[in-house]
Amino acid sequence: ETTATIIDGKSVAKQIKDEIASEISRMKETTGIVPGLAVILVGDRKDSATYVRNKKKACEAAGIKSYEAKLPEDSTEEEVLKFISEFNDDPSVHGILVQLPLPRHMNEETILNAVRIEKDVDGFHPLNIGRLAMRGRQEPLFVPCTPKGCIELLHRYGIDIKGKRAVVIGRSNIVGMPAALLLQREDATVSIIHSRTKNPEEIARQADIIISATGQPNMVKGSWIKPGAVIIDVGINPVDDPASPRGYQLVGDVCYEEACKIASAITPVPGGVGPMTIAMLLSNTLISAKRVHNFE
Amino acid sequence: ETTATIIDGKSVAKQIKDEIASEISRMKETTGIVPGLAVILVGDRKDSATYVRNKKKACEAAGIKSYEAKLPEDSTEEEVLKFISEFNDDPSVHGILVQLPLPRHMNEETILNAVRIEKDVDGFHPLNIGRLAMRGRQEPLFVPCTPKGCIELLHRYGIDIKGKRAVVIGRSNIVGMPAALLLQREDATVSIIHSRTKNPEEIARQADIIISATGQPNMVKGSWIKPGAVIIDVGINPVDDPASPRGYQLVGDVCYEEACKIASAITPVPGGVGPMTIAMLLSNTLISAKRVHNFE
Ligand SMILES: NC(=O)C1=CN([C@@H]2O[C@H](COP(=O)(O)OP(=O)(O)OC[C@H]3O[C@@H](n4cnc5c(N)ncnc54)[C@H](OP(=O)(O)O)[C@@H]3O)[C@@H](O)[C@H]2O)C=CC1
Ligand SMILES: NC(=O)C1=CN([C@@H]2O[C@H](COP(=O)(O)OP(=O)(O)OC[C@H]3O[C@@H](n4cnc5c(N)ncnc54)[C@H](OP(=O)(O)O)[C@@H]3O)[C@@H](O)[C@H]2O)C=CC1
Repeated sequence: ETTATIIDGKSVAKQIKDEIASEISRMKETTGIVPGLAVILVGDRKDSATYVRNKKKACEAAGIKSYEAKLPEDSTEEEVLKFISEFNDDPSVHGILVQLPLPRHMNEETILNAVRIEKDVDGFHPLNIGRLAMRGRQEPLFVPCTPKGCIELLHRYGIDIKGKRAVVIGRSNIVGMPAALLLQREDATVSIIHSRTKNPEEIARQADIIISATGQPNMVKGSWIKPGAVIIDVGINPVDDPASPRGYQLVGDVCYEEACKIASAITPVPGGVGPMTIAMLLSNTLISAKRVHNFE
Repeated sequence: ETTATIIDGKSVAKQIKDEIASEISRMKETTGIVPGLAVILVGDRKDSATYVRNKKKACEAAGIKSYEAKLPEDSTEEEVLKFISEFNDDPSVHGILVQLPLPRHMNEETILNAVRIEKDVDGFHPLNIGRLAMRGRQEPLFVPCTPKGCIELLHRYGIDIKGKRAVVIGRSNIVGMPAALLLQREDATVSIIHSRTKNPEEIARQADIIISATGQPNMVKGSWIKPGAVIIDVGINPVDDPASPRGYQLVGDVCYEEACKIASAITPVPGGVGPMTIAMLLSNTLISAKRVHNFE
């Protein structure tokens, strides 16, 4: 039977979104200003369109004004940059998000780096990452959404980080690497596992806290987990399932059935980290608007 | 008895400086240009003056033109910034180095960030650190000297990094943190120990490679070391020694007497990492000059 606490990301995300909505209405009352988020979508990938629609809905529910630029698949880099430049200059836009992946003929880095760092609510600008890595210096303007959501879940569930052994599985620019930096900032002792790691199971088993972001369905077995460890499963992986109406189901990186009997707390997939990412995007947009308008 | 290979940083540094000198004479012959390094020294700390003198000497020996700005202890931040701005604009200066520590009344970050990133041969600019942390993006313009020197020693001694367990002890902006990022870039599996780590000995003992930069004399005992591990000891720590004419001697973070019987290779202190730092500074200055003048 399940003995672990189920970390309910969906309900925490809802709570955070409510908090944000009430902050925004306070801001609107006091200053007349609402935060604005611009999303740039290039091409017609269905999954990207869904993500963008969900972000828009979440913005509206929270009171954030959303702006959208939809460009055809065969747009040029210059056309995308033109929209970014306009949003950069538009004072009612406090955050700019470029939906990834971009079409193959575009240089992702060129386009992402064109977003003004003050509006880079994704927190992916290298200057932001540098600040995240450095201590005693200027703070990053924004913390990347998914890793920020992972840490927020730990906080809201009262899970101590300081002095704990933390193992991050995966080292991507958008999840694993910034998650490791955030855990270290909170004084965890961090180890990072990746595809070249020889004995991942042995290392993972030392962790008090595991954050997994590999995209490998069910890779983290029960035997990888120290009894009582806390598991944050970032993975969202489709696996074939003829029994499901869609023909597939979504699973995490962690073998949930085994883990939930060994861990002390675990995020389910879906309903764990996933909903937190959008909540953190709204949070970063609000932070940006507050900063520009000196609203506390 | 010592069974470990002694990693002779002094001799590797000499070899590198010779390589740099011959590159520079080739550059001079072909283009008429020599690299230039500017050092800014504020105040009259004896140790800082010594470091600056040594850097100058090393520059001259390698054929790098050195520039110096010496300012009194009670200078203002603006005065320092004025010198930085002049060096930023001077095309014969390819690297700018601000000798630390600065007087207390100055904001170190403001001053360091004023150095143009193209001339930040120390590699401490947050944008550089961000690029070091990110994968598949623009490379950092410069890699911080001391950690670069550590990795260079591993390379020159033919020590494999890929897939190895590496433990970095210390997480400072100038040594530990970038050293961990560099090891990870070379596909080591990295764990980072700091002052809040609860069981450093147990973690260190899993390492194939240890890089220690804590400033704690003789902290890393023999019992911390797995037989056959490679030890890079960055620490340079004065400890009282009435028998020495200076009244003190310099020791590393690692208890050398114990470690040299257990490790397969180890850097001595002094004569290990220390000499590599200046060699890497010259290397970064040459890289900068080559980049500006498109010289390969
Ligand atoms: N909840 C959310 O909102 C979000 C969820 N995700 C999900 O998180 C997962 C990871 O995403 P992302 O970080 O973008 O993925 P990436 O593919 O960019 O990175 C995967 C990382 O996992 C490592 N890895 C891959 N296979 C293994 C293995 N067998 N053992 C150990 N490490 C391995 C890779 O190592 P190496 O570096 O050596 O290649 C890499 O560092 C996906 O399932 C994705 O859908 C992502 C973003 C947001
Ligand atoms: N060879 C060379 O050219 C150079 C040598 N050095 C030498 O390297 C050493 C470190 O320098 P630097 O990085 O600037 O030092 P800092 O003081 O900036 O950083 C020391 C780091 O070690 C950690 N630490 C301190 N005590 C312990 C402990 N008991 N257990 C575990 N970790 C500990 C600290 O942890 P926390 O973050 O939790 O405080 C911190 O991260 C010094 O001896 C210095 O002289 C430095 C630069 C160049």
